[in-house]
Amino acid sequence: MQTAAPPADVIARYRDAFEPVIARYFDTLGSKTDTPGAATFTTEALNLIRDLSLRGGKRQRIAFLHEAARLAGGTPDPVALSVSGLSIELLQTHLLIHDDLIDNAPTRRGGPSTFYAYSQLMPDRPQHAMGLTVLAGDVAAYLALDVILDAPIDPHTATRLSRAQVAAGNGTFYGQMFDLERDFLDRPETEVIAQIADYKAARSSALAPLQMGLICGGADWTPHAGTLSRYSYAFGVAGQMRDDYLGLFGDEAVTGKSSDSDVRDGKYTFATRLVTDSATPAQAKVLAAVFGNPDASTADVDRVRQIAHDNRVPARLSAQMDHYATTAVNEAATWTAHWDPDAVRFFTDVPAWFIGRAS
Amino acid sequence: MQTAAPPADVIARYRDAFEPVIARYFDTLGSKTDTPGAATFTTEALNLIRDLSLRGGKRQRIAFLHEAARLAGGTPDPVALSVSGLSIELLQTHLLIHDDLIDNAPTRRGGPSTFYAYSQLMPDRPQHAMGLTVLAGDVAAYLALDVILDAPIDPHTATRLSRAQVAAGNGTFYGQMFDLERDFLDRPETEVIAQIADYKAARSSALAPLQMGLICGGADWTPHAGTLSRYSYAFGVAGQMRDDYLGLFGDEAVTGKSSDSDVRDGKYTFATRLVTDSATPAQAKVLAAVFGNPDASTADVDRVRQIAHDNRVPARLSAQMDHYATTAVNEAATWTAHWDPDAVRFFTDVPAWFIGRAS
Repeated sequence: MQTAAPPADVIARYRDAFEPVIARYFDTLGSKTDTPGAATFTTEALNLIRDLSLRGGKRQRIAFLHEAARLAGGTPDPVALSVSGLSIELLQTHLLIHDDLIDNAPTRRGGPSTFYAYSQLMPDRPQHAMGLTVLAGDVAAYLALDVILDAPIDPHTATRLSRAQVAAGNGTFYGQMFDLERDFLDRPETEVIAQIADYKAARSSALAPLQMGLICGGADWTPHAGTLSRYSYAFGVAGQMRDDYLGLFGDEAVTGKSSDSDVRDGKYTFATRLVTDSATPAQAKVLAAVFGNPDASTADVDRVRQIAHDNRVPARLSAQMDHYATTAVNEAATWTAHWDPDAVRFFTDVPAWFIGRAS
Repeated sequence: MQTAAPPADVIARYRDAFEPVIARYFDTLGSKTDTPGAATFTTEALNLIRDLSLRGGKRQRIAFLHEAARLAGGTPDPVALSVSGLSIELLQTHLLIHDDLIDNAPTRRGGPSTFYAYSQLMPDRPQHAMGLTVLAGDVAAYLALDVILDAPIDPHTATRLSRAQVAAGNGTFYGQMFDLERDFLDRPETEVIAQIADYKAARSSALAPLQMGLICGGADWTPHAGTLSRYSYAFGVAGQMRDDYLGLFGDEAVTGKSSDSDVRDGKYTFATRLVTDSATPAQAKVLAAVFGNPDASTADVDRVRQIAHDNRVPARLSAQMDHYATTAVNEAATWTAHWDPDAVRFFTDVPAWFIGRAS
């Protein structure tokens, strides 16, 4: 067996091949889309959807899709693979547009969130900016299915791919709802935080790309539903732990996200939950003054970080993360019994990359 | 040929048969849906989607679907028909949830809008109420496709039905965007108001049910795309004219909607556009003080209504409405050349019913 390429290289290779595909999709979308002739807001919405979709980041999902298509060992349908990749990224665009509106987030992927882009375009009309953001997200959600249903692929494949995406979409919506419910819970259990990570992120970013890749490769994923879900869950929880670590201890210049906001918002993440759990009575007094205090300064949050370090939170979170990553690796290792070991290798290698990310 | 039943009776008959179908769908949805086990917000969202979907009103769309299924003269697939009806109503629920959020509308179908229901549940958390409304709408949008894709029907039918719904959904989103753009336009042309009506309402309420009915009846609608679109457009514009008439001259106790708000909001509808167009310089001064004045009283709006009556706006709007209704009738009359005249009869009869509605 050949030496497998490092996951980061595999992911970069698929991303480089995918960028022209998604750029071409948006180049022709406007002329193929049936919009009211006299409207300009529709054109603007499609432009904002395109801009966010092209600022795509790592495109880990695309690598999952293509590597999963190799698992069954056949020759994947290139058209099905191409539209599946577009669908996955369009669904992601939809999720980000609505999530950033819900969270009132100003930036995303190194640019303005769609809501903030609209807010800048019409500063005196906040209700219109909100409405157009809702609608732009709705368009992206339906384009994610349109691109599959409209493709020259056989209807059986199209319905199976669409079902995977609809399940991923609804799973994510339920996860986003649960994420909002978290703000009403008094110190949610770790299990709750894990379920949110699974539904809100892993369904659309790991599980659906796996299922769709197998479909494109001519395989039936349904007999393997259990192992795919277990892998996706463990991979997603490990990744969320890394996100939550970076959300407290990360370098803002690298992550592009605030390392203070989870504490300031009083948000129970895998990281902040460990801090509040491990606090001595004296430390708990500090936390009570800072955690959930919107006026807390970076110096205040630094005191929380100091408590975290004193209580070995980074090491303990790292151990939990390793546990989930190892669970994912062990799950994927069983796949060699029925799938191509060379393709399986990517899925046993990628968790280590995922939990080692600096952003 | 037998004497055709009045359209109102046909519509009521299909509605009565459909109500138990949609009630049953929601009775089993919760147990079939994959939601995070510990979450309560997901259950609440599904309940709100159910409540709005069951307060269904006339269900004109369901009659369109079933009568279109009879056009080709075959025996329609009952499962495809059933899930198409559910899909049409779920998409409508989605559109209403998001539209009422965008318009900040407190009531819908004789109950609270979903946004207001959430706002009452969490009065101190407006951002969470907004977010959950966005997500509840997203769930309904994907359930509208899930119900088709998950049904025991052949994949070719499933993809064709899904494509019709995706096109209807995106058409509606573009129409809603154009509707928001209207607020930025200085006296939009009548053609603009007609395009908004077509995209925002006729695509999902007339065109898609027609297309889906034909698919369920085993017919290919695509060779007839032109005449179906022309019918849907004329039917939709005539209906919007009736809505706009009722929005200025209707009895609020019957319509359940304010007859002052279009004037107060300065909204250019088919009705208010005629009023502003026909005003004398003296009347224009009254309009300038009232139209678009959020503090205008009902007495102020009564002065606008008096101007409208003085300038024969009701009769002129009625003449325009008749023109579009007649266009729809004439379009449907051509269908007897290739479709069952008895089924065509519904579509030639229904425009007169639609423009005679009191609510």
